Order: sequence, then structure tokens, then C-alpha cells
Amino acid sequence: MNLKEQLTQMAKEAQEASRVMLSASSIKKDKALREMAAALNSKKADILRANKKDVQQATRQKMPRAFIDRLILNEKKIREMSDSLRQIAKLNDPVGEVIKAWRRPNGLWINKVRVPIGVIAIIYESRPNVTSDCIGLCFKSGNSVILRGGSDALNSNLAIYRILKKVLEKHQFPPAVVNMVSTAERSAVEALLKLDKYIDLVMPRGGEGLIKRVVRASRIPVIKHYKGICHVYVDEWADLNMAQDICFNAKVQRPGVCNAMETMLVHRDVAARFLPGMLKKFKEAGVQIRGCDITLRIVKGIKQATDKDYHSEYLALILSVKVVQDLSQAIRHINYYGTRHSDSIVTDNYENALEFLKNVDSACVYVNASTRFTDGNQFGMGAEIGISTDKLHARGPMALEELTTYKYTIFGNGQIRI
Amino acid sequence: MNLKEQLTQMAKEAQEASRVMLSASSIKKDKALREMAAALNSKKADILRANKKDVQQATRQKMPRAFIDRLILNEKKIREMSDSLRQIAKLNDPVGEVIKAWRRPNGLWINKVRVPIGVIAIIYESRPNVTSDCIGLCFKSGNSVILRGGSDALNSNLAIYRILKKVLEKHQFPPAVVNMVSTAERSAVEALLKLDKYIDLVMPRGGEGLIKRVVRASRIPVIKHYKGICHVYVDEWADLNMAQDICFNAKVQRPGVCNAMETMLVHRDVAARFLPGMLKKFKEAGVQIRGCDITLRIVKGIKQATDKDYHSEYLALILSVKVVQDLSQAIRHINYYGTRHSDSIVTDNYENALEFLKNVDSACVYVNASTRFTDGNQFGMGAEIGISTDKLHARGPMALEELTTYKYTIFGNGQIRI
Repeated sequence: MNLKEQLTQMAKEAQEASRVMLSASSIKKDKALREMAAALNSKKADILRANKKDVQQATRQKMPRAFIDRLILNEKKIREMSDSLRQIAKLNDPVGEVIKAWRRPNGLWINKVRVPIGVIAIIYESRPNVTSDCIGLCFKSGNSVILRGGSDALNSNLAIYRILKKVLEKHQFPPAVVNMVSTAERSAVEALLKLDKYIDLVMPRGGEGLIKRVVRASRIPVIKHYKGICHVYVDEWADLNMAQDICFNAKVQRPGVCNAMETMLVHRDVAARFLPGMLKKFKEAGVQIRGCDITLRIVKGIKQATDKDYHSEYLALILSVKVVQDLSQAIRHINYYGTRHSDSIVTDNYENALEFLKNVDSACVYVNASTRFTDGNQFGMGAEIGISTDKLHARGPMALEELTTYKYTIFGNGQIRI
Repeated sequence: MNLKEQLTQMAKEAQEASRVMLSASSIKKDKALREMAAALNSKKADILRANKKDVQQATRQKMPRAFIDRLILNEKKIREMSDSLRQIAKLNDPVGEVIKAWRRPNGLWINKVRVPIGVIAIIYESRPNVTSDCIGLCFKSGNSVILRGGSDALNSNLAIYRILKKVLEKHQFPPAVVNMVSTAERSAVEALLKLDKYIDLVMPRGGEGLIKRVVRASRIPVIKHYKGICHVYVDEWADLNMAQDICFNAKVQRPGVCNAMETMLVHRDVAARFLPGMLKKFKEAGVQIRGCDITLRIVKGIKQATDKDYHSEYLALILSVKVVQDLSQAIRHINYYGTRHSDSIVTDNYENALEFLKNVDSACVYVNASTRFTDGNQFGMGAEIGISTDKLHARGPMALEELTTYKYTIFGNGQIRI
């Protein structure tokens, strides 16, 4: 079999396995998940050995330090992966939930019921822990999963995958419930993306290049976790102390993540009072500021912000600052430069708060809180498989529920259409 | 401007208009809808005149009779279009519904709120009434719409579109809320499908060729209304009189639609009792039967069914019949040959009913009822913009609610992440 045939066969078997999963009980699934968690710990030597190979190769190839840091596994990281599987076992199974049910005048009883999506392909570049998280979440929600990780982590990914798959087989789940594309060939991704007959959803997790490539080539629905250019708007009616805390937290607490603030918008009437103290605090924390004309007039010695800055996801201690004329300019700026991820207003004005919530076209819109809360765990979902910046199917943090779809089950007693 | 630039401009303006729609009140929208309904009636002469041109051209081109029947408009059809808009005005506005809300331990109050999707492109081949239905449903749900109808109905579509747009302008809605691509150039579709920066969703409505072309070329999420190969399975525990009524209704009541039965599956233990009477009834109604080996042995003079038959959406008085060994073979047959549309079991056995509901992987799964009920109006949605055979975002009948997405609005009082 050539690569295309192999992948088709894999996807076909994954679909068959997903049909078996339609009637898998939560009790059986959770038992397997707990044993998967235990297996990661008891086989950690295998994982560490495989990881060493990946790390050695990355070192030989002189990959950047940050890259190797993400790649490297240790006992603590494996324990975290294992804890995460145990946590997933504890979550409510979304499958079978009746979202809505009603009876029609003719007696038909219509139920809208949550069911697994089917076969999910996840294409990722990042850390090996994604492997066990994705397997755990997809399995719990009754889906088959096809994983395609970065080739730099292949040995680590395969080790984790094999350990978990073995547990599933022991518990009599069909082996094709979890699958890994183990070739480094780039064409494997393109071939996968044509298998819309068998695969129901593709989730690319990685840089802009990967995501664009997937969207272009895919015949399968894609849910994207795209970049986060998040804004905090300090309104003229803001409590400026609260604004300072929120902006500082949104930028500095963890600058390298998608829900960190990249642009701060400030109403012109409070700019002169707010900016000097705020920017001083940022400077002390090592944040580089790129400001608009008015910002530059209020605080000296700042670099000018360009249009490109407002379009930038820095993921670093850099911040664009812009003074706006009013709320409506703030909203327009966010809808134009933002990425529909997370945006916040700081205000004590009721009308302005509601106006912002209604008109900012983003997945998560905040009043008086840091954008850093956009996260499955912070939302109380108990887990996270990604944050969707798309509008279809799922938006914002995605966890178990977002890995399901619904179907209608309809109970009749002989109804025919007249 | 060339075609690509024109379409980009149109999509961009549609997106801007969709942002204005985010704060349009239901009262204002419904008022405009009622006036749109009235305008269709009062300007019916314009529509009939435009339609006459299309019909004359189609006649000159010797298009088939059925095609011209679908194209032709008369006073009754215009009144139905108008009634449908009035009906849409009466429906609940889905926008603003709080799907779920909860408070986090830190006091953050998270609301999952229904909001418009944004910009929806609809590419259709069929009747001119689709134009007013789509405008009505997209407008009511707060979306901008870009319509691309078949070139054979262009004059009719444009006449309807212009009348409705004029009402929207009069009511101070941004004109770009409704848009029509009026060129017959085929490349317009391909160009539209690349505008993922501005268009949020594409819905192709038409034949298999159109749908495949759209899925291949689109960078925008697509929801498909694909073909319906629907099954009724007569279980060994079926009430055979009920089974006869349901199968007859599912095949004969309106054979040309996607929720009509195309294949009847019968348990081997009841085949000899059920098939002779059932097939006689079908024969009297002019239904041609294509049967499996066992069917051919039970009832003489029937054409043999091929594998291709089981894959066929006849949309006509033709039916494939297959005798199966048991429930599980019936389910496997449906999941393999079906199109995830609508399938029904007739049975009085509790276990078998639940087994069927759980394991048939279709949008609508019935017990003891005709598949013909898969329809927005029959479901009580008050309208229908299509039936999704996809699994992502929307499945089964789609109406107003399915034309929305959600966002999270989060109310804080100074929360920062620790």
C-alpha cells in the first residue's frame, strides 16, 4: 500500500471504530481512562527513553533553546499528563445529553441529543503532552482520533500513543479508536485532508503557516485555533486603578499565550491621567511600548506604533497603545484589527459596558476582567482542547462538549405525513 | 474594478453591515419583514414581468418541462413568498438568547449568548422563491447575506431582491445587509469562496455537482444539504400494518424530495408475510421495485437490485428492497449506504428501538414514523433554510437558530488571573 492507501485504510477503520463508540458506556470509558493515566506513570521509562532520542536529535540540529524546552519531558511533566487523563475521567460525559425535547401536535416526540462527532484529525506541531490530552478528550467524548504530530517529537509521541492504545485494546475497545500518522512525509497531511468521506473534523494546532495550509487543502470542516490579538479598552468611565491591574495582568502575567493583551486602547479623556503611571509600571516589568501620536505626546521616549503593530500578535513583552476618541472608535478598532478572540472593556458605565459586549465581534468579550481568563479550565470546563477563533460549530474555549454534535431521535407511534 | 475586486468590495461591505445588525432590535427587524411581505404583493407585476423573461429564455433554450415548472412564478406563488416572510416576522428572534450562564468561584459571571453568524453566502440553483426565503431568514437572524442564484432565474431573482432591498433601505438598515451576485460568470463562485476574511459561512443548495465544486474550492466553512438516501427498516417485531402505512407514506407521498425513502429493509423472519402485500400496494401506486435475491424469491417478476441501486437517491417512484438477517445488518447497511439524513425503524421491541436510535449515524433517526417528517416546519421550527447532512455546527433541519452562533459575554468586577 502506498501512503494514500494507508491513510485511507486508517481513516476507514477509524470511522468503523467510531460507530462502535456510539454505544460505549461512560463507566467503561472512564475505567479505561484511569488505567491509561496509571500506564503513563508505570511506563514512564519508555517515554523518557523515546523523548531522549528526540531531544538529542533536536540538539544535533541546533534547534532553539525554547523549542527544546517544549520538547523535553521529565517525570513531573509525565505526572501532569497522567493527572490530566485522571481529571478527564472525572468529567461528565457529554454524550447522551438531551439538549432539548418537545412533542409535536401529531404526537411525535422529538429529542435533540448530544452524540460524538465521529472521526477527528488533529494536526499539531507542539509538545508531546498534546498527544495524551487529545487522546483522552476525544476518547471520553466518544470520537475516534487521528493524530499527526510534529516530526521532531515523533519518538515521544509514538511512545505515549502506544502505551495508551494498549490500554484501550486491553479494555476491548477497537484499536482504531486512536491512530497516529507516523511518517514524517509532509504529503501525509494533504492526503488526510481529502478524506472527507471518513473524517468529520480537522483541528490544526500550531503556527499561522500550518493553519493556512490546512484551510487551503481541506475538504473536511476545519476548526481553527488562530492567533489572538486581544485588546483591553480603558473607557472614560473606568476605575483607573482597576484598569491598571487588569491591563498589567493581561499583558504581563503570561505574555506568550494567545489570550494575553497585545493592544491597549485608552479613551482620550483619561489618557493623560492613566498613561504615565500605567506605562511606568509596564516599563518596570520590561514591557516595550509602541504608541500612537497622542501616546507619544503624553509619555516621552516611546517608539511609534505602525499599522503593522496593531496587526501583530507579539506573544512577548511588547504592547501597542492607542488613544481613541470614543467607545465606538474602540469597537471599530477591535473588530478591524482583532482576531475575534478575547477583548475587554474597563468601565463603570452601564450603557458603555452593554454596547461593548454587544458590538465587539469576538468569542469572549469581558467587562472589568482580564482577557487571560479565556481558557477551558478558567471557564470551568475542566479541560481544554483548543480555543476556536472560528464562528461555526464552536467558539472560544473548546472542551468535551465542543467535541460532540447532536442528532434528532424521534419517537412515534405510526405517524405518517399528510 | 474587475469581478474579483467587485466581489471583495461586496463581501467587505456585507461584513460592515453585519456589524451594524449586531444591535438591531427584533421590533425593527420584524416591522421591516412585514413591509417586505407587503411589497412583494404590491409589486407583483414587476416580478411577473421579470419572470416572464426568464421563462421565455428557458423555453427558447428548450429546457425540460419540470425545470420550467420550477422557474415559473404566478400570483399564488408570490403570495406564498409573501406569507412566508410574514411568518418569519412572527417567529422568535434567536439573537440574544442566553444558552447557558454560570458564575465562577472568583465571581466572573459567564454568559453563552446566541449571536448572528455574520455574513452568509448562499449559492443556489433552484426556484426564485429561495431568494425571498433566504433574505427573510438571514435578515431575521441578524446576518448579512450574499446570494448567488442560478443564471436561468436571474431576472426573477433580481426583481425580488430589489424590491426587498428597497424596503430595508427605507427602514434605515445598511443596504449591504442583502447582496446579490448578478453576473452569470461561473468564476464568481470560485472568487466568492476565497473571501474567508469577510464571509463566515457558505451554504450551497443544489445538485451534487454544485456541492462538490463548492466543497473543493471553499476556504470558508460550508454546510451542505447533500442527497438523502433514507431507509425504513421493518423489524421482526414490527406491527406490519403500521409498517405498511409508514413505508408507503415514506416512498409515495412525495417521492421527489430528500426525506423520501429510497431503500426499504425487511427482517428475514417477516419478509414472507410482509413483502407480498406491501409490494402489491407499491405496484398499484406505480412504484418500480428493485429487490435483493430473497425479495426476488418471495415476489416474482421483480428487477434485481445492484450495489448502485443501494447508493441511489432516485427522487422518483423507484424503491430498492433488501431482506436483512437481523437488526445489526440493517444498521450496518444504513451507515454504509445512507447519507446521514433520515432513517426509521418500525418495531414494537424496546431494545431494538433504542439500539437503532443509538447506532444509526444519521441526523434524524425515527421509531415508528415516516422519514417524511424531517423538515423545519414539521419539526415546529416555523421555517427552513435547508437540511444539513453535515455534522458540524448544524445537523438536520436548519432554521433561524441554526443561522446563529454564540459568544461568551463575561461580567467581572476587577478579576485578574493569578
